[in-house]
Amino acid sequence: MLTYYYAANTCSLAAHLSLVHAGAPHEAVRLDFKNQQQRSPEYLAINPKGRVPALVTERGVLTETPAILQYIAQAWPASKLAPLDDPWALAQMNSFNSYLCSTVHVAHAHKGRGARWADDPAAWEAMKRKVPQSVGDAFAFIEDGALRGPWVLGETFSTSDYYLLTIARWLEGDGVDLAKLPRVLEHRARMLALPLVADVIAKQEG
Amino acid sequence: MLTYYYAANTCSLAAHLSLVHAGAPHEAVRLDFKNQQQRSPEYLAINPKGRVPALVTERGVLTETPAILQYIAQAWPASKLAPLDDPWALAQMNSFNSYLCSTVHVAHAHKGRGARWADDPAAWEAMKRKVPQSVGDAFAFIEDGALRGPWVLGETFSTSDYYLLTIARWLEGDGVDLAKLPRVLEHRARMLALPLVADVIAKQEG
Repeated sequence: MLTYYYAANTCSLAAHLSLVHAGAPHEAVRLDFKNQQQRSPEYLAINPKGRVPALVTERGVLTETPAILQYIAQAWPASKLAPLDDPWALAQMNSFNSYLCSTVHVAHAHKGRGARWADDPAAWEAMKRKVPQSVGDAFAFIEDGALRGPWVLGETFSTSDYYLLTIARWLEGDGVDLAKLPRVLEHRARMLALPLVADVIAKQEG
Repeated sequence: MLTYYYAANTCSLAAHLSLVHAGAPHEAVRLDFKNQQQRSPEYLAINPKGRVPALVTERGVLTETPAILQYIAQAWPASKLAPLDDPWALAQMNSFNSYLCSTVHVAHAHKGRGARWADDPAAWEAMKRKVPQSVGDAFAFIEDGALRGPWVLGETFSTSDYYLLTIARWLEGDGVDLAKLPRVLEHRARMLALPLVADVIAKQEG
């Protein structure tokens, strides 16, 4: 039995969707970010990073979304959540997921998490002003081809589709010009129409 | 035959070391960042991200260090660069590599790449001032246990050791308090003493 720690409206949606998709037995535990529950001593004992997601297994705790996503795909291969038999295709999935994690999510985080990278409130405001452009530029790279269609990897559905949906839900809040992202929006709409996706979002945010 | 694009003093050292370790036939091509060669039309045609590293294979171009590292390990399994037979251990490697990519490297990048996240030069200066603390905090997490010892994953050498060395070479330039990182420094010294490491660094920076 796994325990999965998440918070609403965070990147933790991606692996949560993958866990449900895989049929992996798990208990999902919600952290309340508004009350800084991710900074509680109880949670820091589980995940010293003070972030979500964290997946607690019999062998220990796993953090970082790209790593959790491939782990779920490998531990539940019947889920077909990753092209496990093709190292090149798997590398493309991991490349896309790493880009979401280290470039797109990071650009987004400058809207509300500026204190990670500067102590000056004026700098936080400067960071916020740049988010529509920096996130927009990152999504332009996805729009222009990294999202191959119909799924991220082409004909093969994978964890990257859940991860992209997760980050693409932030576009309006990030002030990105949606008119430039028709393919991303079409993918997002198709993902949101999946019953599994609607169910997990309702559970996370209900 | 692979082609590997790198630049001196960047994160592209990690996969370069892994390619040489694996005995993967490749041509290593150096980009001159001082002349913005990563922004040349020729290179952008190869890697539209305008970054390093990029690994060109018969099947296409692969970017993002964590993805390239696992790909090399899988494509050259005799290299034993990753615990491929144990999805949990492999996930720990990928978790560590993702942390280096999305947290540690990102913190470091605020020293010289502030324009990615703000347009205001005063904000860039505020970002620079925070780097010793933000990079130091990220390395404290590594010092306090993510680096298990003697190697990152414990008894098993992996790509994470090359990647950690790569980022740890920036500690002095980032103004981090080295006295707090004896385990990281000991690992770095041990890695730098490996002939393969010395050779590749000399080639990259010679």
